[in-house]
Amino acid sequence: MQSTEIISKKKNGEELLPSELSDFLHSFLSGETTDYQMSAWLMAVCFQGMTKKESQAWTQLMWKSGSTLPRPHRNDFWIDKHSTGGVGDKTSLLLVPLVLAASEKCLGKDKIRIPMISGRGLGHTGGTLDKLESVPGFSCRKNIQEATKLLEKNGFFMIGQSEDIAPADRKIYALRDATATVESIPLIVSSILSKKLAESLDGIVFDVKVGTGAFMKTRDSARALGQALVASSKDHGLKAIAVLTSMQEPLGFTIGNAMEVLECWEFLLGKQEPQFKSLVVELGTWMLYLASQKKQDLSSCRKEVESAISSLRSQELFIQMFSNQGGNFEEFLKKHQTPNESYLDVKVVSPATGFLTHCNPLILGECVKEMGGGRQRTSDTIDARVGIRVFKKVGEPVQQGDLLAVGTLKKDGNVQKIQEKMNSSFHVGADSQEPDPMIYEVIE
Amino acid sequence: MQSTEIISKKKNGEELLPSELSDFLHSFLSGETTDYQMSAWLMAVCFQGMTKKESQAWTQLMWKSGSTLPRPHRNDFWIDKHSTGGVGDKTSLLLVPLVLAASEKCLGKDKIRIPMISGRGLGHTGGTLDKLESVPGFSCRKNIQEATKLLEKNGFFMIGQSEDIAPADRKIYALRDATATVESIPLIVSSILSKKLAESLDGIVFDVKVGTGAFMKTRDSARALGQALVASSKDHGLKAIAVLTSMQEPLGFTIGNAMEVLECWEFLLGKQEPQFKSLVVELGTWMLYLASQKKQDLSSCRKEVESAISSLRSQELFIQMFSNQGGNFEEFLKKHQTPNESYLDVKVVSPATGFLTHCNPLILGECVKEMGGGRQRTSDTIDARVGIRVFKKVGEPVQQGDLLAVGTLKKDGNVQKIQEKMNSSFHVGADSQEPDPMIYEVIE
Repeated sequence: MQSTEIISKKKNGEELLPSELSDFLHSFLSGETTDYQMSAWLMAVCFQGMTKKESQAWTQLMWKSGSTLPRPHRNDFWIDKHSTGGVGDKTSLLLVPLVLAASEKCLGKDKIRIPMISGRGLGHTGGTLDKLESVPGFSCRKNIQEATKLLEKNGFFMIGQSEDIAPADRKIYALRDATATVESIPLIVSSILSKKLAESLDGIVFDVKVGTGAFMKTRDSARALGQALVASSKDHGLKAIAVLTSMQEPLGFTIGNAMEVLECWEFLLGKQEPQFKSLVVELGTWMLYLASQKKQDLSSCRKEVESAISSLRSQELFIQMFSNQGGNFEEFLKKHQTPNESYLDVKVVSPATGFLTHCNPLILGECVKEMGGGRQRTSDTIDARVGIRVFKKVGEPVQQGDLLAVGTLKKDGNVQKIQEKMNSSFHVGADSQEPDPMIYEVIE
Repeated sequence: MQSTEIISKKKNGEELLPSELSDFLHSFLSGETTDYQMSAWLMAVCFQGMTKKESQAWTQLMWKSGSTLPRPHRNDFWIDKHSTGGVGDKTSLLLVPLVLAASEKCLGKDKIRIPMISGRGLGHTGGTLDKLESVPGFSCRKNIQEATKLLEKNGFFMIGQSEDIAPADRKIYALRDATATVESIPLIVSSILSKKLAESLDGIVFDVKVGTGAFMKTRDSARALGQALVASSKDHGLKAIAVLTSMQEPLGFTIGNAMEVLECWEFLLGKQEPQFKSLVVELGTWMLYLASQKKQDLSSCRKEVESAISSLRSQELFIQMFSNQGGNFEEFLKKHQTPNESYLDVKVVSPATGFLTHCNPLILGECVKEMGGGRQRTSDTIDARVGIRVFKKVGEPVQQGDLLAVGTLKKDGNVQKIQEKMNSSFHVGADSQEPDPMIYEVIE
């Protein structure tokens, strides 16, 4: 069947056969089907969706376009967490040490492996890789062979999507980004799952973020995505859970690459923002629960993760997370705990006495990107030091003149614009307001 | 606004401003906006449509991307007919001489001018230019200056779309053809009208074909297109009429380039297939009526067109139609009235006694294309001699063994396949069946 007929069939809402999808993709990868034909098809998918059968076939095709981690048959459980992207989301950096520490204690050594392939900052959201790379010497560029060795030796790795992981998805994602065809549940699902299937996982926990700072603005759209992710994972033989969580304000106390790594370290030393802590515990609990394969119940998994927070083993694993891949955490601490004269602080103070009612994660995320903490173009380099610290969370009482946030940026940056944007992100009202719960719902 | 935002706005069903459409098109023409972005946008238009304001702006942009015929201010009326495409549709070749002859008689000399820019065969349908070019020496390649001279001197021309007529439409049409985004009423309307507006017309008659052999398969979809064409023409200051006509069987007795020119000649000499004649008279009547600007009523226009059929002036104008642009009609007659030994005939005879119930124009149109009477690729050359003659029309009684049709093709052609396809196009049933009326409705 010719590409034009494939596009036409999708446009008319007819189901495409797996063989038709396969021909279409391979003809695209060989260059016979053009970028403009693929784009027209992607837009038709945005309107017509995909049937379960189509979605499964398309996910397989994206996945099989690249390599898969070799999976020795052993008595271990491979698990990962995927977040749809938020502001100040440093959760992965804590989940790796906490879940490993907890599982060593309750399941035994080497029972869980976490092969984590993460992304870079996208739009106004940060990326795990950029945070990790704020530690001097850390490298996330590992090929399949190197990654396999890391996993074997340490029980986890934290790397980027290499050339050989789902290359078809990478090519198609670039088109989607330029043609406003990102927002389509079957396309999002196939893109995420193709990369996760390449990790040879047994289970996965999805953190589907909802709200101003997330790609999904409403609970309904997030629920639909969560359900599709869980269903599609199960179709491919994975155990899966999706947790819908709030992205109405930045997570924790910081936004910015080095600041977030520091916050995680302080988290393990005892200073935790309560809402962020509840998110870390929730996701960690589900990871451990899936991996325990019913040997543990949910509440005992929760207790194990909670007690891992204050364990020395977690601190040790946190430092190993960097050193395993060449990172020097001691040097990082020395560098980022010392002030630097090229930077200045921009302060936001409360204009009134009352309660903090809003703290806009989208605007603050954009501020950090503009400060140099994210990329305008993929070729841009990141300034790890810039970022924003917030001192009050939504719902807290504030006095006029109280410090709400401090932004740190280069002295030659656009200070006035950042000051104005930061000011506009915070609202203080007279009435006390319950903040959104962190965990909305769980889709099993 | 960036192209991605323009695509996103259309995808979300928001109205685009004329300035946004203009920026988008010019950025496309300059190469900044890519083919794949335009294709994604075109597909979004297929689903979301265009508002009246958008459609008008887009049509203007297509039109103004090229030249417009200079229009001296004189007491004449410029009119054209546009058909949405059918099988055996040689109507234009008769309308030019008949309408001119009739108008000379009832309105006076030089009161009507017909600047006709036609197309080539598309899909299974034939093209007026291909038919004209079956006459040796005829050239349809004229630039605006040459075309203007022809119109001034003879009152009409019959040319192809030159490089300087709506070039943006040509570029976008090529994309639409490859991305299954042809079928969208606002895109069809802007494509047709942009070329017609370049003719500096005062009025236009649309022949919107409906049925198996047409692009519009249902009366509802054809009506929607007809209404949109008329409304958009009026928005641009043209007088306009759309006639919905049947394309359930081939028009007249022949399909194929030279055969159709011969049929037109015989039509003027007295041999007319009645249904086809009624179509020619209907369209000619409306052309004359619009051009008369209420100086004539509809029934007197009809009488004038009918009586022009048997006039010597029409025959003279028919021959001039070719000679004006270098064609030698006498040589054509000599060539095509003499048998050629490189060709053979394929016959379809009736398998039973009864009534002809179906004669599939889509399959027969494809047969002629496969015989070499149309193009598989734009670079293909046309064999003017091949084609199909039908001897019975739907509704006529037939005896077992009666000749239904004869196909003429090259001896080295795929004779067996053509024979099978031709056989499958005709159905004879026991019950008499009224054929569809030729004229379904008129949209004023």
